[in-house]
Amino acid sequence: MRAIIKAAPGVGMTVAEVPTPRCGPADVLIKVKAAGVCGTDLHIWEWDRWASNRIRPPVTIGHEFAGEIVDLGPEALAAGILRPGDLVTAEGHIVCGHCLQCRTGHGHLCKRTKIIGVDRDGAFADFIAMPASNIVKLHGIPVEVGAIMDPVGNAVHTVLEGVEIPGSTVFVLGCGPIGCFAVGVAKAAGASLVIASDLNDMRLDLARSMGADLVLNPMSDDVVSRVLEATHGNGVDLVCEMSGHPAGHAQAFKAARLGGRVNLLGTPSQSTEVDFAHEIIFRGLTLYGVTGRKMYSTWNTMARMIRSGQLDPRPVITHRFPLESIAEAIAVIKEGRAGKVILEIDR
Amino acid sequence: MRAIIKAAPGVGMTVAEVPTPRCGPADVLIKVKAAGVCGTDLHIWEWDRWASNRIRPPVTIGHEFAGEIVDLGPEALAAGILRPGDLVTAEGHIVCGHCLQCRTGHGHLCKRTKIIGVDRDGAFADFIAMPASNIVKLHGIPVEVGAIMDPVGNAVHTVLEGVEIPGSTVFVLGCGPIGCFAVGVAKAAGASLVIASDLNDMRLDLARSMGADLVLNPMSDDVVSRVLEATHGNGVDLVCEMSGHPAGHAQAFKAARLGGRVNLLGTPSQSTEVDFAHEIIFRGLTLYGVTGRKMYSTWNTMARMIRSGQLDPRPVITHRFPLESIAEAIAVIKEGRAGKVILEIDR
Amino acid sequence: MRAIIKAAPGVGMTVAEVPTPRCGPADVLIKVKAAGVCGTDLHIWEWDRWASNRIRPPVTIGHEFAGEIVDLGPEALAAGILRPGDLVTAEGHIVCGHCLQCRTGHGHLCKRTKIIGVDRDGAFADFIAMPASNIVKLHGIPVEVGAIMDPVGNAVHTVLEGVEIPGSTVFVLGCGPIGCFAVGVAKAAGASLVIASDLNDMRLDLARSMGADLVLNPMSDDVVSRVLEATHGNGVDLVCEMSGHPAGHAQAFKAARLGGRVNLLGTPSQSTEVDFAHEIIFRGLTLYGVTGRKMYSTWNTMARMIRSGQLDPRPVITHRFPLESIAEAIAVIKEGRAGKVILEIDR
Amino acid sequence: MRAIIKAAPGVGMTVAEVPTPRCGPADVLIKVKAAGVCGTDLHIWEWDRWASNRIRPPVTIGHEFAGEIVDLGPEALAAGILRPGDLVTAEGHIVCGHCLQCRTGHGHLCKRTKIIGVDRDGAFADFIAMPASNIVKLHGIPVEVGAIMDPVGNAVHTVLEGVEIPGSTVFVLGCGPIGCFAVGVAKAAGASLVIASDLNDMRLDLARSMGADLVLNPMSDDVVSRVLEATHGNGVDLVCEMSGHPAGHAQAFKAARLGGRVNLLGTPSQSTEVDFAHEIIFRGLTLYGVTGRKMYSTWNTMARMIRSGQLDPRPVITHRFPLESIAEAIAVIKEGRAGKVILEIDR
Repeated sequence: MRAIIKAAPGVGMTVAEVPTPRCGPADVLIKVKAAGVCGTDLHIWEWDRWASNRIRPPVTIGHEFAGEIVDLGPEALAAGILRPGDLVTAEGHIVCGHCLQCRTGHGHLCKRTKIIGVDRDGAFADFIAMPASNIVKLHGIPVEVGAIMDPVGNAVHTVLEGVEIPGSTVFVLGCGPIGCFAVGVAKAAGASLVIASDLNDMRLDLARSMGADLVLNPMSDDVVSRVLEATHGNGVDLVCEMSGHPAGHAQAFKAARLGGRVNLLGTPSQSTEVDFAHEIIFRGLTLYGVTGRKMYSTWNTMARMIRSGQLDPRPVITHRFPLESIAEAIAVIKEGRAGKVILEIDR
Repeated sequence: MRAIIKAAPGVGMTVAEVPTPRCGPADVLIKVKAAGVCGTDLHIWEWDRWASNRIRPPVTIGHEFAGEIVDLGPEALAAGILRPGDLVTAEGHIVCGHCLQCRTGHGHLCKRTKIIGVDRDGAFADFIAMPASNIVKLHGIPVEVGAIMDPVGNAVHTVLEGVEIPGSTVFVLGCGPIGCFAVGVAKAAGASLVIASDLNDMRLDLARSMGADLVLNPMSDDVVSRVLEATHGNGVDLVCEMSGHPAGHAQAFKAARLGGRVNLLGTPSQSTEVDFAHEIIFRGLTLYGVTGRKMYSTWNTMARMIRSGQLDPRPVITHRFPLESIAEAIAVIKEGRAGKVILEIDR
Repeated sequence: MRAIIKAAPGVGMTVAEVPTPRCGPADVLIKVKAAGVCGTDLHIWEWDRWASNRIRPPVTIGHEFAGEIVDLGPEALAAGILRPGDLVTAEGHIVCGHCLQCRTGHGHLCKRTKIIGVDRDGAFADFIAMPASNIVKLHGIPVEVGAIMDPVGNAVHTVLEGVEIPGSTVFVLGCGPIGCFAVGVAKAAGASLVIASDLNDMRLDLARSMGADLVLNPMSDDVVSRVLEATHGNGVDLVCEMSGHPAGHAQAFKAARLGGRVNLLGTPSQSTEVDFAHEIIFRGLTLYGVTGRKMYSTWNTMARMIRSGQLDPRPVITHRFPLESIAEAIAVIKEGRAGKVILEIDR
Repeated sequence: MRAIIKAAPGVGMTVAEVPTPRCGPADVLIKVKAAGVCGTDLHIWEWDRWASNRIRPPVTIGHEFAGEIVDLGPEALAAGILRPGDLVTAEGHIVCGHCLQCRTGHGHLCKRTKIIGVDRDGAFADFIAMPASNIVKLHGIPVEVGAIMDPVGNAVHTVLEGVEIPGSTVFVLGCGPIGCFAVGVAKAAGASLVIASDLNDMRLDLARSMGADLVLNPMSDDVVSRVLEATHGNGVDLVCEMSGHPAGHAQAFKAARLGGRVNLLGTPSQSTEVDFAHEIIFRGLTLYGVTGRKMYSTWNTMARMIRSGQLDPRPVITHRFPLESIAEAIAVIKEGRAGKVILEIDR
C-alpha cells in the first residue's frame, strides 16, 4: 500500500510502498479516507530536536484520520460494537490501561502512551491497524470532519476543562487551527463572549468565521486593555493559551479575571519568567496543562456537538491535497498560509 | 401609592392605596415598572392551605419585578454601586447572611428567608423597598425581561446545577413558563438535544418557540419510549422535572440515562411512590431539589446570557395587563391559557 | 477443584467437584485464598424472586475474594503488570468497555455488566479465572482484607461520592457490614462527626468499634432529633442510607441538612412514599443511587487508605468458616448474628 | 487603649496609647485576648518595598486575633447571632459584597478588600471594631487557637482546594507555620501520606509533630527522588507550595504526579523560569494561587476540624509574648528560631 514515511533520520518524508499492516486479535484494520496534517508532522518533517529524539525511522507518519473498517480481529469482532463498513475515526494515543492515570480517569496522561504516526505506524497510508478500544464511530459525521476530530478534541478539552462555559467569557489566545476550533467550541458551549487574538490576520478571519465576537491583533491592539474593556474591567473567566509564547503567557495571566482560569495548550519551545506572586497567587488563578483528549468523555461531547450541528470545524479547513502532495501540504503550513490542511487519501 | 394586597384571609386580592414604603439605611427604594405574575400568586389568590398557613395579611403581593431606583439609604449609597436612576431587578429572597447555609454558598436555602410578596410587602405596587444587597442591575436588559428574571433564574438553576450542559441531552418535563424558560436555557448553554413534554399543546408551541428540538404530548406520545429513541436507547443526561406530578417523576427516572441526573423544580401537592432500588439505585441516578436561585451565581450567568442575546425569554410572555387588572391576570393563568403573564405597572 | 455451586433452581447451594476454569488470553487464573459471604449470596441461597429471575444454574457462587495468581494468558502476561505469585483481589463486575457509561467514567453502570458468582462462575472455589483488567494487586494488604474489598469499596463509594468529607458530619443509617465499613471510611476520610444507627445492638457495637462517635437505636432513640441535636440543629452534610427501608428513607431526608446529600446504597424490596416538595425540593437535597465501585478510582482510594493503616475493616469480621461450611455461614448471616463472614478457602 | 502602631514610615513599630475604636451600626467591638504575629507583620516592621507602597501610617498593626465581644452596633445586635460575652475570632479581609467575585463565591479575591492591620486599624491592641459579618464564634475553641485561625485557614484553603484529600498523597514544601499547619490539615483530612520539606530542622521537627509521615531536608536529601520513591514512582496528588522560592517551584512541578495539582501559597519576591511544555503541559498539572480563606466555607471546615479534635495547631506555637514585647516577637521570627508566635494581650 502507499504510505508517507520517515524513512531515515533527516529532513523530509517519502511516499513509499509498504506492506499493509497486520490486524491483531483486538484490532481493526481501517481503509484511510482522509487525514489531517498537524504541526507535529511539520516537526517530524523538519527533524527538529524533539523529532530526532523521539522518532525511530522507518515509521509511517500521521495521527489524525478517518476511514472505513475493512477487517476486525476475533476479539474486536466478538465485542459486538464495530463492523466492517463502519466509518470511523480514532484516538491516536494508545495507552496501557493499567497505570494509576489509566485507572483514575487520566488515561490521556498514561506514561506508556504510544502515539500513532510518532511511536508506531500512523495514518498517512492506505490502511492503518488500531486497537478496537481506540475507535470512535462517525455515525453521520462527515469523513472530512472525522479526519480532524483529534485536534478538534484538543480544543474541546481546552475549552471545557474545569470551567462552566455557559454564560462565561472566553479569550482564545492564538488562532492556529486548534485555536480556531476552540472559538467554535466556546460558542457552541454557550459562552457569552468569545475574544480571539493572533498576529496573522488570515487566522483572525478564520476565528471570526468560527464565531469570535471580537478579534484582536497584538500588532495594532493593546490586547489586555481590549479584553478588560470588553469585560467591564473584570477580565475573562477562561483564557485558552494556544500560542506557546512567553508574551502570550503574560497576556493570559493579565486577561483572566480574579479567580479565573488559564488552560494552556500551546507548547512553548522556551521557558517563561513567571511572577507567581502578582500574576498567579494574588489573582487566585488556576492554570491547567492540556494534553490530548480525555478518553473518552472529550470524544463523546465533541461527537454530539458536531452531529447536532452546533459545531462545524470545516470553515477552518483551507487546503486539501492528495497523499502524494505531502511536501506541498507541509509547505503551506510552514509558510503560515494555512488553516487546517487535509490529505484526501481515498475520495 | 397603588398596591395589590391580600387585605384579609380568604380568596382574592384588592387594589388599594397604601403608604409608600420607608427606605432603610441599607435599602433602596424602587419605582416598579413591570412585574411577573407567578403560580405562587395564584395560590395566594386562592388562599389554599399553603397560603393560609404562611401569609399574614395585610401584605402587598408580588415577587417578580423590575423598576428604577429612586432613593437609597445612606449605607446603600456609600457602597458606591447603585445610584438613583439605575434600572434594576432583585432577588426576592431576603436571607440572614449568618447561618451555615448563608456562609457556605447555599444562601438560597437559608432557614430565615423572608420572601417579598409573601413574608413581607412585595412588588405589585408603585414602589418597593429592598436591601441593596439583593439588587441586580439591568445594564441594558429590557425592563420587561428584568421583571421575569426571578422565574428565568429558577430555570437557569434547574438546568445548570451539577451537570455539564455543553453537548448534553436534556428533557424538560412540564412546559409551564419555567419549563419553557428551561428549554431556552438548555439551548443557550449548548445542549445538543432538548426534548420537552406537556399535556397542553399551547405550551408545547411555546417550548418549540424557545428552541425545543422535539416536543412530546403524553396524550398521544409514549414519552419515555420517544426519549429513549431520540437518544439511541441511552436516555438523557439531565431531566428537568417541572411537572410536580407522580407520573412525571416516574417518567423522569426512566428517561434519564444510567448515571444521569434529575433536577426537580415542580413542587408536588401529593406524595409519589418511588421504587428506589430499580428507579434510582441500580440506575445510578442523582436527584436534586431546586429552590430559588443561587445567590448570586445564577443571576450572573443569567444576566450574561440575556445581554449577549443567547437567551431571550420573551416568546414565553403571552399576556400583559395593567396593575388594576390583576383578577384577569390570575384568571388566564388559572385557565391554562397563558405562558408568562406580566403586569405593566408604569409604562 | 472444589466449588460452591447453585446446581439447580431452588433453595440452598452444593459443594461440588467442578473443572478448574480455563484461563483465556487476556485472563489470569487465581488460586482463591479467602472469600467474603454477602447478602447477595443469601438471596441466591434462598432463591428469592431476584435470584430466580437472574441466575442460570449451574453456576459457581461468590464475588468477594482474594488469592494468588497462578497462571496468566499471553496478553495478560504481555501487559507486564501482573505476575505469577502476585497476591490480588478483583473487581467482580466485568464490563463491556465500549458503551456510553464505560467511556465516560461510569463503567460501574455498564448495561452489559456480568457479575462473577451471579452471571458467570464465581469465587467460592479453589480457582477463578478473571480478565486481567479487573485485577487489583494487594501490595501488602492482608489476604483477609483483600477478600472483602468489594463491600468495603461499596462503602468508600457511598461515603466519598459528591461530598467533601474532611470536616463534615456523616450519618450512617443501617449498620450491616457495609454500614460499619462506611463508619470507618468516614472517620478515615476526616469526617468531624460520624453517627450510626441500627435496630441491632450487636451491629451498633461493631459501628462503635469502627469509630462511630454516636450510635443510635430507633427502638430507644428518636433518631432524627438526636442527629439534629448533635449537629446544632443543622442536620448532617451526608446521610449514607444503608437500610433500604422506607422508614430509613424518611429519617434520611429529615436528618440531612438543608442543601445536604443522601447517598443510597440499601436496596429496598418495596417502594417508599416520598413527599418531594417538603422532603427533597424545599430542603435542596441531593440524592444519589450507589451501584458497585467506581472503576477504578474507588479501588485506588480504598487501597491507599488500607495500606496506610487509616482504614482497617477487620473489626467487622465476626465469623470465619471453611468452604465446606457454607450452610453455617449463610445461617449466621440470616439470623442477624454476624458482621462480615469470611470463607477461608486456602489457609 | 494600648496598641502596636506603625506611627510613621520607616523600620520598627511603636507601643502607644490610642483611642478605643468606635463601634459602627453593623459592627462589633472586641476586647482582644490573643493575637498571632505573621510574616506580613515582619514585612511591615522592616518597611520593605511592599509595606512602604501599601501602608499609610499611622495604623494599628495585627490581623490574627481572638477576643470577647464587649459591644455591638444596633444592626449587629438585631441580626440576633452575636452577643456581648461571645468569644470570637474574625476574617480579617473586609470585602465589598457587591463585585463579581463577592457575588460568585470568590469574595476572598474582592478587589476592594481592606485588610485589618494593613489597610485599616488592626488587632495588636486592647480593642478592635469589626463588621459583624466577619465574625466567627469560637464555640469552645481555645482563645489561643482562635488567635491563629487566620493562618490555619490559609493552610486549610491550600490543602483542600480542588483535590479530594481522603486517601491522597500530599507534599508540603516549606514548613513555616502555615506549612506546619498544612501538614496537620492534610492528616486530619484523611491523606494517606504526608511528606514535608524545609531547610530548617527545627521546622521539620514541628512538621513531624503535626503528623508528617516523612520529612526531607534539601541540604541532605534529594527531595524529588525521595518523594517519587515514597509514591512508587508516581509523585504526589497534591503539592502545597509554601516556600515561594524558584527552587521550590521546580521541585513542586517534578514532585506532582501526572495529572496532579500544585497549590501555591508561598509568595515569591522574585520571578521563576517555568518550562511550561515539560513542567506543566505534558504533565497535565493544575496550578492554583491561594489567597486568604474562602468566605466562609474554609472557616466552617476549619472550626469543625478543630472542635472535633482532629486538628490541633498548638504544637506549632513556640513563643508567647506580652503586647509590649513586639520587638522580641519580631526578632525570633526574623532569626528563623520560631514556629508560630503569639501575643498574649489580655490573659
